[in-house]
Amino acid sequence: MTSKKDMLDVLRHSRHDWLNVIQLIKGYLALERYDRIEEVLEIAIQQALNESKLSNLSIPNVSCYLLTFNWLQPPYTLEFEVMGEVTDLQSIEQELESLVRAAADLFKAHCSLERENHLLLTFQLFPDFLRLTFDFQGKLCRLEELETALKHVLQKREDSFELREEECVFSVCFEKK
Amino acid sequence: MTSKKDMLDVLRHSRHDWLNVIQLIKGYLALERYDRIEEVLEIAIQQALNESKLSNLSIPNVSCYLLTFNWLQPPYTLEFEVMGEVTDLQSIEQELESLVRAAADLFKAHCSLERENHLLLTFQLFPDFLRLTFDFQGKLCRLEELETALKHVLQKREDSFELREEECVFSVCFEKK
Repeated sequence: MTSKKDMLDVLRHSRHDWLNVIQLIKGYLALERYDRIEEVLEIAIQQALNESKLSNLSIPNVSCYLLTFNWLQPPYTLEFEVMGEVTDLQSIEQELESLVRAAADLFKAHCSLERENHLLLTFQLFPDFLRLTFDFQGKLCRLEELETALKHVLQKREDSFELREEECVFSVCFEKK
Repeated sequence: MTSKKDMLDVLRHSRHDWLNVIQLIKGYLALERYDRIEEVLEIAIQQALNESKLSNLSIPNVSCYLLTFNWLQPPYTLEFEVMGEVTDLQSIEQELESLVRAAADLFKAHCSLERENHLLLTFQLFPDFLRLTFDFQGKLCRLEELETALKHVLQKREDSFELREEECVFSVCFEKK
């Protein structure tokens, strides 16, 4: 059973996020920028669809971690997109969670606060496997140390690993069991 | 600690509510009814403010009950407003919760599904007490039985009790301890 205070806290954060969207629309309405309102609506709808799909993958720990990530004011903002048909990823949740958390923590430790930083996580869903792409844009420090640590986390499962001061991009496949 | 599945469920309901607002705006945008968009935004902002105030009254059980009430598809929709300065109602939460739940259940048992039914709960916050007004509009059945049951719940603490087939309105004061 949920603690009522936790529930109120979740609702408070969610309300805050949606009010930002509402305020944006209000601003563009005052400026008569109706084209921008349409954009804001489309982005909000698309994001809600991504959130809904993420919530339906039977990976509650990973979903909660990602859905609440930006509420803790991390040094980079996280965005995610979910492509493909919703499928059951329960069998790989543990492996997925530990990799996602480890990589997210490494980016926290190695990103510079001089610039805005952003991590886009793309879930590509296939019937038998998940392909997860990390795309970090911003400014990274101590690149060699980061590369060693990331490669240790990835255990040679990544493809097309790219790491530069302003970006880091790689994908990992998880086969369903 | 919150169960992750409960948390995802709360977020799913909240997302659904906000998406309704977004879809409404999208519809009015297509119709170029910008005045209506402004109304929708104002209502959404006002409701968020009410929700935020309700969440800050230190009555988590009552707040969660009311904030999630409409998610369970009750026979009437619940709306609430919170007027006055936010204050700490912890000392009266138990008494408040049992009265609110009992009255809400009685309206459930006595409302007719032939019409749309609606309950507006108004919290008027004063430094030393809370005045809570129930305003039910819709269609009620078995009025005598309802009156007896409500008066039993209220224990003569109500003022200006009105009960007719299409409405029921009364207020109760709760003194802070």
